[in-house]
Formats: sequence, C-alpha cells, structure tokens
Amino acid sequence: MLTLYYAPKTCARASHIALAESGLPYRTQRLNFAEGEQRQPAYLAINPKGRVPALVTERGALTETPAILAFIAQSAPQARLAPLDDAFAFAELQAFNSYLCSTVHVAHAHRFRGARWADDKSAHESMQRKVASNMRECFELIEAQMLRGPWVMGAQYSVADAYLFTIAGWLEGDGVDLAGLPATRDHMERMAQRPAVRQALAEEAAGA
Amino acid sequence: MLTLYYAPKTCARASHIALAESGLPYRTQRLNFAEGEQRQPAYLAINPKGRVPALVTERGALTETPAILAFIAQSAPQARLAPLDDAFAFAELQAFNSYLCSTVHVAHAHRFRGARWADDKSAHESMQRKVASNMRECFELIEAQMLRGPWVMGAQYSVADAYLFTIAGWLEGDGVDLAGLPATRDHMERMAQRPAVRQALAEEAAGA
Ligand SMILES: N[C@@H](CCC(=O)N[C@@H](CS)C(=O)NCC(=O)O)C(=O)O
Ligand SMILES: N[C@@H](CCC(=O)N[C@@H](CS)C(=O)NCC(=O)O)C(=O)O
Repeated sequence: MLTLYYAPKTCARASHIALAESGLPYRTQRLNFAEGEQRQPAYLAINPKGRVPALVTERGALTETPAILAFIAQSAPQARLAPLDDAFAFAELQAFNSYLCSTVHVAHAHRFRGARWADDKSAHESMQRKVASNMRECFELIEAQMLRGPWVMGAQYSVADAYLFTIAGWLEGDGVDLAGLPATRDHMERMAQRPAVRQALAEEAAGA
Repeated sequence: MLTLYYAPKTCARASHIALAESGLPYRTQRLNFAEGEQRQPAYLAINPKGRVPALVTERGALTETPAILAFIAQSAPQARLAPLDDAFAFAELQAFNSYLCSTVHVAHAHRFRGARWADDKSAHESMQRKVASNMRECFELIEAQMLRGPWVMGAQYSVADAYLFTIAGWLEGDGVDLAGLPATRDHMERMAQRPAVRQALAEEAAGA
C-alpha cells in the first residue's frame, strides 16, 4: 500500500491524480499547514525537507513531484502514464516536469514563500509584484513550445498532464487571466472530465 | 552524435561529466553568456528557455539537468550511472536530482539572477544576503540525510554525483565555508580524482 502525504491545493495534487490514474492501491494522509504540521518532528521523520508531497512505500519514503510521478508511471506500466520504452520520449516528459518543478512552481512560490529567499518585508512585496507576469510568461512559453495537445505529450495522456493541471490551478490566484491562455484553459477543462481527476479532487476535498 | 550546449561553471557541468562517464560519443558547444548568446535567436531555436544545458540528439533537443542526466544513464546502461532496473532506487536518485534542481540551484540563483523574481535593486540585495545561509542549510541537510557515502547513492557511483559536485563547486563563491561541510568536501575530492571529471573540466577550460 502506498501512502501519499499531502495538503490541499498544493503540488501534491499532481501525485494524487497520478495515483488515481494508475490503479495502484493507495491512501492519503492530510497535513494541516495552518498548524505547521509539515515542520513537526513526526512529519520531518518522513520528509526532512518539511514539504509535501511524500509518498511512503514499503521500501521507504519518496519525495519530489517529478521523481514520484516517474515512479508511479513505472510502477503501473499498464496505465501507460509515461513512455517507458523510449528513453528520448521519457526524457521529454521529464524535462517538462522538471521545468514545472524548478521554474514554474518556484515562480509561484515567490507569492507566499518569499521568506525562503529574503528576510525583509519590502523584498517579499517586491517579489509578490512579479508573480503574475512571471507565471503568465511561463504559461505563454508552455503554450507556444511545450503543450502539444490534446495532452502535454500529444495524443498520449501522461503524468505531465496531472502536473500541468495542478500548477495551472494556481494561475487565477496568482493574478493571471486565463482568457489569455486558451490552450491551458482547454487542457484544464479536458482534465476536469477525467474520472481519476474527479476522484482525486473529491478525496482531497473530503480531507481523507 | 550528441551535442551539449553549455557555459563554463554552470549547471551544464553535471551533464558534461555524465557524458564523459557514459562512453557515449559527444561534442560540446560553448555559449558566451557575457554576450548574452543564450538569448539570441539561434540558441532560442534550440532551447526557447534561453538556458543551458541543452543536449541535442538525433531526435531533437533535451533540456533540464535531471531529465538529461536520466537520459544519459538510460542511453548507456553499461556505464551503470543509475539503478535502471529498480524503480524505487531510480526514484530516490531522481528525488535527489530534483532537490538539487528545484531547491539548491534555485537558492544559489538568488545571488546573481534576482531579476527573475523582483524588479528593484534593494530586493536583489536582500536576496543576496540570504544566499550563504540558504546554501549552507541545503548542504547540511544533504550531509545529514541524503549523501550516503562514498557516493550519493551509497556504494554505486551515479549521475547524482556529477550533479552534486557541480553545485558544490558554487559554495565558496556563495560565501559558504567548506570546513563546516566535511562530507561534501570529501566528495568533491573523490570526484576530482575521476578521469571523466578531469576530462570534462579540461574540455570546459579549453572552451571546446
Ligand atoms: N520540489 C518539491 C517542492 C515541494 C513543495 O515546495 N511543496 C510545498 C507545497 S506546493 C510545501 O510543502 N510547502 C510547505 C512549506 O513551505 O512549509 C516538489 O516538487 O515536490
Ligand atoms: N532547471 C534548469 C535550469 C537551467 C539554468 O538556470 N541554467 C543557468 C546556468 S546554471 C542559465 O542558463 N542561466 C542563463 C540565464 O539565466 O540567462 C536545469 O536544471 O537545467
């Protein structure tokens, strides 16, 4: 049995959707960020970085969204969540996930997590002012160069779609008008139809 | 033939070392960052993100260090640069690489690339002041929780070692005293003995 540690509306949603798509047995364990549960000893023993997601397996805990997504895809080959037999196509998928993780997620994090990178309030405010334009630029690049349609990798749905959907869900809160990002909006609508996505969102809302 | 686009002393060094370890045929192509070559149309046609590394293959260009490292390992299985037959161990390796990419590299980037996340000079200065302590914390966590020794993954050398070596090479410039990071220092010395590392550094210095 796999256990996903998550908090609502975070990047952990991508791993949650991938689990629901995979057919692997899993359960979820919600952390209360408002109470700082991610920084308490019980959770630091699972993930010393104090972040979600963490996926606890029989062999130990895994962290980092791109690593967890590739692991789920490799653990459930019949679900075809990644091009496992083609190293080049797999690398393209991984490059997409790595861009979301290291650039797009990080651009978003400057809205609420400025304290990671600067100590004074005026710097945090300055970072916040740049979030909307940074996120818009990232998604313009995604639409122009990466999102092939109908799914990220083209005809074949993959874990990258779960990840894109998760981060795209932050755009409105970040001040980006989705009207200017039609391919992203279409992708979000297409995702919202998928039974696994509905299931993951329902489980997240139920706080299981 | 593979072509690695790089600039000296950047994260592209990790991919360069991995290529040298792999035994795959490759050549390197240096970009002149001082002249902004990474943002000129010729290079944007290869990598629209305007960053290094990019690895051009027969089937197209790959970007993002963790994706390129996994691709090199999968393309040269006989070099044993990743645990390719064990999805859990492969995910542990990928989690390490993703942490370097999304957290440690990003912590470092706030030293010279603050303009990515804020527009005013005082915010950039504020970010710069936090780089040394952030980098030290990241490497303390790496030493305490991740670096098994003698190599990152334990007995078996992997692409994660090339990546760690590359980012550890930024510590002194970032104001972190290596005396406080003995496992990192030992790892750097061990790496510097490897013929492939010497070869990559020599090629980088020659500006091939
Ligand atoms: N690189 C990690 C980032 C994980 C991360 O930053 N998660 C956020 C939620 S989106 C978190 O746990 N934040 C809690 C905190 O900063 O205290 C990944 O992609 O999994
Ligand atoms: N997430 C990317 C980051 C690539 C990156 O930021 N590269 C830096 C060099 S370490 C770069 O090309 N900077 C040039 C610039 O910002 O103009 C990766 O890990 O490959």
